[in-house]
Amino acid sequence: MGKKYLFTPGPTEVPPSVLAACAEPIIHHRTLEFEQIFAEVNEGLQYVFETSNPVLTFAASGTGAMESAVANLLSAGDEALCVQGGKFGERWTELCNAYGVKATPLDVEWGKAVEPSLIEKQLKDNPALKAVFVTLSETSTGVRSDLEAIGKIVAKTPAALVVDAVSGLGATRCRTDAWHLDVVVAGSQKALMLPPGLAMVSVSDKAWALVEKSTLPKYYFDWKKAKSNLDKKTTPFTPAVSLIVALRESLRLIREETLDAALARQARMAEACRAGLEAIGIELYSQSPVEGVTVGKVPEGIKGGDFVKRLWSDFGIKVAGGQAQLKGKIFRIATMGSLDCLDIPLVISAVEMTLHRMGYPVELGKGVAAAEKVLAQPVQ
Amino acid sequence: MGKKYLFTPGPTEVPPSVLAACAEPIIHHRTLEFEQIFAEVNEGLQYVFETSNPVLTFAASGTGAMESAVANLLSAGDEALCVQGGKFGERWTELCNAYGVKATPLDVEWGKAVEPSLIEKQLKDNPALKAVFVTLSETSTGVRSDLEAIGKIVAKTPAALVVDAVSGLGATRCRTDAWHLDVVVAGSQKALMLPPGLAMVSVSDKAWALVEKSTLPKYYFDWKKAKSNLDKKTTPFTPAVSLIVALRESLRLIREETLDAALARQARMAEACRAGLEAIGIELYSQSPVEGVTVGKVPEGIKGGDFVKRLWSDFGIKVAGGQAQLKGKIFRIATMGSLDCLDIPLVISAVEMTLHRMGYPVELGKGVAAAEKVLAQPVQ
Repeated sequence: MGKKYLFTPGPTEVPPSVLAACAEPIIHHRTLEFEQIFAEVNEGLQYVFETSNPVLTFAASGTGAMESAVANLLSAGDEALCVQGGKFGERWTELCNAYGVKATPLDVEWGKAVEPSLIEKQLKDNPALKAVFVTLSETSTGVRSDLEAIGKIVAKTPAALVVDAVSGLGATRCRTDAWHLDVVVAGSQKALMLPPGLAMVSVSDKAWALVEKSTLPKYYFDWKKAKSNLDKKTTPFTPAVSLIVALRESLRLIREETLDAALARQARMAEACRAGLEAIGIELYSQSPVEGVTVGKVPEGIKGGDFVKRLWSDFGIKVAGGQAQLKGKIFRIATMGSLDCLDIPLVISAVEMTLHRMGYPVELGKGVAAAEKVLAQPVQ
Repeated sequence: MGKKYLFTPGPTEVPPSVLAACAEPIIHHRTLEFEQIFAEVNEGLQYVFETSNPVLTFAASGTGAMESAVANLLSAGDEALCVQGGKFGERWTELCNAYGVKATPLDVEWGKAVEPSLIEKQLKDNPALKAVFVTLSETSTGVRSDLEAIGKIVAKTPAALVVDAVSGLGATRCRTDAWHLDVVVAGSQKALMLPPGLAMVSVSDKAWALVEKSTLPKYYFDWKKAKSNLDKKTTPFTPAVSLIVALRESLRLIREETLDAALARQARMAEACRAGLEAIGIELYSQSPVEGVTVGKVPEGIKGGDFVKRLWSDFGIKVAGGQAQLKGKIFRIATMGSLDCLDIPLVISAVEMTLHRMGYPVELGKGVAAAEKVLAQPVQ
């Protein structure tokens, strides 16, 4: 019966006004009313994506839109570079494999960001590479890639730079146009503060040229069909109307706060979260921490699964555990979306008390104090 | 500022308690709570599908799940029969073409149902056919296929029978198991009374055997992945949580009414709608009318587009016009989902007054009286 708190890196908490929009009576999608909403949504998405490229929206999870990038850009036998330093980077390789695209995996040690010069070398060694697949915010490890540097490198080659920004967009800076990001994939249930069920993808002119040559099969996720419908302010297939209406509201909230302020707020929350954890002896996992999710190593002697469970059972706090080889070894606290300043002392407080109850030596309040030290600074 | 009424064949009106469920705080999908909801949803879907086959649920529009049937059952170069007598039947052919499947289109005159013996002949003439794609309720023409008869024919062959039941399921009888329907595709925004954004597909043992041999590319819509996750009461990718929670509520409503009663109610509404239109001289388009949508021909001298627009502007009634070659020639009134008995005199009344205002000779009240004559009969 207690209060519940969603600190998971997707789905994230949805603001009340966005939830209310989800419950509005359904409108038909072939109407002027919907067209106006959809046009407003697209403008808002371009604002958050920082792009003048069209942003296509699909009724799907983020993975559906990731798949659309492979199917629309490439042909069977094409070669692509897949940077993988976590579960989501590996998904690019799996997607390429599913479609008969020759994926060259570029393995990065988990917890570290890819060294941009390694991508440069691969592109130099293999001019046949048609696309480079990267991850903005690797949710499984809390690592942020240096897309600005990578963008500069890939822009000089014929390859398209394709970014999984599903859990990053809106939480960490992603300058689509300025950084030469050809394709950026996002999802609704992260920093866009919506229920899951919508995925978006922005497509640059360079990417559209690849689309013209692609022969892989596609229909539901066909970008050309989506684009020609977008030009008419609609979608080729019935859109997830209620989520689009809700997206208008969440984009309105972001524009009201401004993207700069929203990013700064989330950066501050992440910094405070890291400071709080470190102050009580929790080691951070990521060596290039991203703003949207803070990853702590489970301390010696504590079972990671139990820790995550007790945060939930004792305090109603839902955080994520580790995936794959990190199962039981880390915990992940989302610091993105509609969470605010005071949510950080709150979650650090729960972490302190849970560790204490589990017999781990914690100086109660020390982590909270460290978080406050960050958050008490005047907001610029 | 007036009241608005959605009589479109998708999206349809969503009941208040289902809308309210859409606005519930988001829960995380990797929790016992979600697993219990998802298990309940799957039981409810099996009840409405009338099947003991697993029903896979995707965050997508119905077309996404239709595509999944092609991608999961077939391989490039396979042959398939596509029954097309309307816009949605044609979609099966387009999907096969997109995936390099050799589609044999079986053209049926629009407004008529396919003659099952024609399917029998095709299967006899071409034993290589691996699948037969049909449409339960062809929303573009208001035609219902005789799936019971077709099922008997296809069951005797090695081919799988794949049914687009997106706009039919829950509005008209669809006995998946008893009729030997190997794959049945449904969507959330029709008789399931939900916002758009979810698609479901049931898969028989015969179909699973084809899945094992299929080599077409798939990832997001991979049935095997969906099935192994379903066995663990979850989904491979983040599900559209709020729509799943809402689906639990709409399935609860259907079970409360009982499927038989819901189908009888919608059949009565459709019969009353047809009677009402015919009484004022509107010819019906479909020669095998389906329960979920009633299609009338726009009378001589009236512009179909204007008629649909004036129903909206004058009375807040949203009906659908014709698609493709039927543009301007027909109008389509949905009689499915959460609509109830009194909605029929209401919509017929608006049709009468709109035609009157547009100068078409109508004896006011005559259509309503004919509808009432059907609806006034005691409910069995």
